[in-house]
Amino acid sequence: MFSILSRDTRFFDLLEKGSAVVVRTAEAYAELAQNYSNREQIVSQIRRSEHDGDSVTHQTLALLDKSFITPFDREDIQTLIKRMDDIIDEIDAAAKRLTLYRIAEVTPWLAKQTVVLVRATRLIADAVGQLRNLKNPGRMQEHLIEVHHLENVGDDNNHAAVAELYETATDPILVMKWKEIYDLTERAIDRCEDVANTIEGIVLKNT
Amino acid sequence: MFSILSRDTRFFDLLEKGSAVVVRTAEAYAELAQNYSNREQIVSQIRRSEHDGDSVTHQTLALLDKSFITPFDREDIQTLIKRMDDIIDEIDAAAKRLTLYRIAEVTPWLAKQTVVLVRATRLIADAVGQLRNLKNPGRMQEHLIEVHHLENVGDDNNHAAVAELYETATDPILVMKWKEIYDLTERAIDRCEDVANTIEGIVLKNT
Amino acid sequence: MFSILSRDTRFFDLLEKGSAVVVRTAEAYAELAQNYSNREQIVSQIRRSEHDGDSVTHQTLALLDKSFITPFDREDIQTLIKRMDDIIDEIDAAAKRLTLYRIAEVTPWLAKQTVVLVRATRLIADAVGQLRNLKNPGRMQEHLIEVHHLENVGDDNNHAAVAELYETATDPILVMKWKEIYDLTERAIDRCEDVANTIEGIVLKNT
Repeated sequence: MFSILSRDTRFFDLLEKGSAVVVRTAEAYAELAQNYSNREQIVSQIRRSEHDGDSVTHQTLALLDKSFITPFDREDIQTLIKRMDDIIDEIDAAAKRLTLYRIAEVTPWLAKQTVVLVRATRLIADAVGQLRNLKNPGRMQEHLIEVHHLENVGDDNNHAAVAELYETATDPILVMKWKEIYDLTERAIDRCEDVANTIEGIVLKNT
Repeated sequence: MFSILSRDTRFFDLLEKGSAVVVRTAEAYAELAQNYSNREQIVSQIRRSEHDGDSVTHQTLALLDKSFITPFDREDIQTLIKRMDDIIDEIDAAAKRLTLYRIAEVTPWLAKQTVVLVRATRLIADAVGQLRNLKNPGRMQEHLIEVHHLENVGDDNNHAAVAELYETATDPILVMKWKEIYDLTERAIDRCEDVANTIEGIVLKNT
Repeated sequence: MFSILSRDTRFFDLLEKGSAVVVRTAEAYAELAQNYSNREQIVSQIRRSEHDGDSVTHQTLALLDKSFITPFDREDIQTLIKRMDDIIDEIDAAAKRLTLYRIAEVTPWLAKQTVVLVRATRLIADAVGQLRNLKNPGRMQEHLIEVHHLENVGDDNNHAAVAELYETATDPILVMKWKEIYDLTERAIDRCEDVANTIEGIVLKNT
């Protein structure tokens, strides 16, 4: 049996493990945009991260099921781990489509968006790390506000990318493929904001 | 400090203020479809309404945070104000795309849908106004049923608009642009139904 | 007045009735893919099933409103019936587009996906039937795991179908039409997984 304290620690461990998978997946996606000739390998790596994310999510839900005491509301922990997993799923869906649709080369807009995404996931991982110590949250609030800002940046980038795509492209099928990939990438950034909202809700209830 | 009563009043004031921004945004969108040569100006105006909507939402959530007593369930007020804001966000997204995608002229179908949207938002504003006085809700039920009906009308219009687009258009990129704008407009009408559902839930719990 | 027991029975009856409409709608969609020359008739039949689904949903929500005692959490029953209705809505939306967009013939991929969908809905109906008797749930767990598996199959089929569409099609407008129909069909299968998740949550809380 575990003491209350050790039980708490295990939730924080799992949430941090989950956020580390999120960062790793976003970094692999940015690497994919930089190093596109290695695409087969990097897409497989993202696929494996997606399984890792599922595994951490299931471990967290299983621990919730057998725990009487949790550091925050049961539902909030569930929402937080699931929404982190949603980020990974969107990245995996976007990355997979690059190879599935036989995209020959990536665009500067995609590279730009993956940089925004990496930054947002790192801020989230920082904030998740601070959940252990809500009495002394450090620069958590600033980090979360920055995630909201990055969501706006991602939105503006996506609009500009799609407008450019529509202006310049000549092959409508290629336009459709890229529209889908851009939208999935932007959605991954949106999901980071969902996670930021969830963390803010937890902080509000617990301070 | 405020008495319980005055506190209640402030929630109703904010919800009404929010619903007024919704109506104003929908009206500007209808104006955009009628008066498309003024598009730059009207799209900026919608953009400002979108900020107003965010501001009312934040004020409402802040008031919720510091209030011990609320006229309805805390969560219902939160859901209601957020869903009203969702209507505004969809309209803003649709309107922005008209200029972003350099659409040269609008279609009769768009004008038709914005009329449906204005009607739905006005009915919602009426119903929100009646929340102050649930003992005597007047024609609230009829109004909300009419919103459900308008959602069906919006749906049918959208299907007809997209089918016509597919039948008649020759430029596939233009088809993609319009498909997105039509779908966002229909989604704004769908969000009106979400708001109607939320209000119906509140009425059910509080009468 | 009803005894507690008879009241419980009525909820199970309605949930089973709902799941039967889901299965019937999926079967009609599979029939549509097999027997496409009868499309007008089958699409109308699906449309009627969509109304039947709405009716069972409303009956269930009305019974919830007037019942003090429910066999499971009030919210879980509401979520379950609504999510079953979501499956029907997606099928109806997909089927309607086949005639609306004047699709001349269906593809083998569509037929394949409707088979997956029928299988998933039958498993759900089995699981819903077992809710009456959670002490002795039979092979419910296996059935629900199979639904998760079918969701993955549906996902893979959809990716392959869309990739093939992009590779082989020459008419971009036709590609857009099929992309939408394929995505709606996959979403119907996704909704089956949502229902499976809801049932699993109910089982977890009640055993």
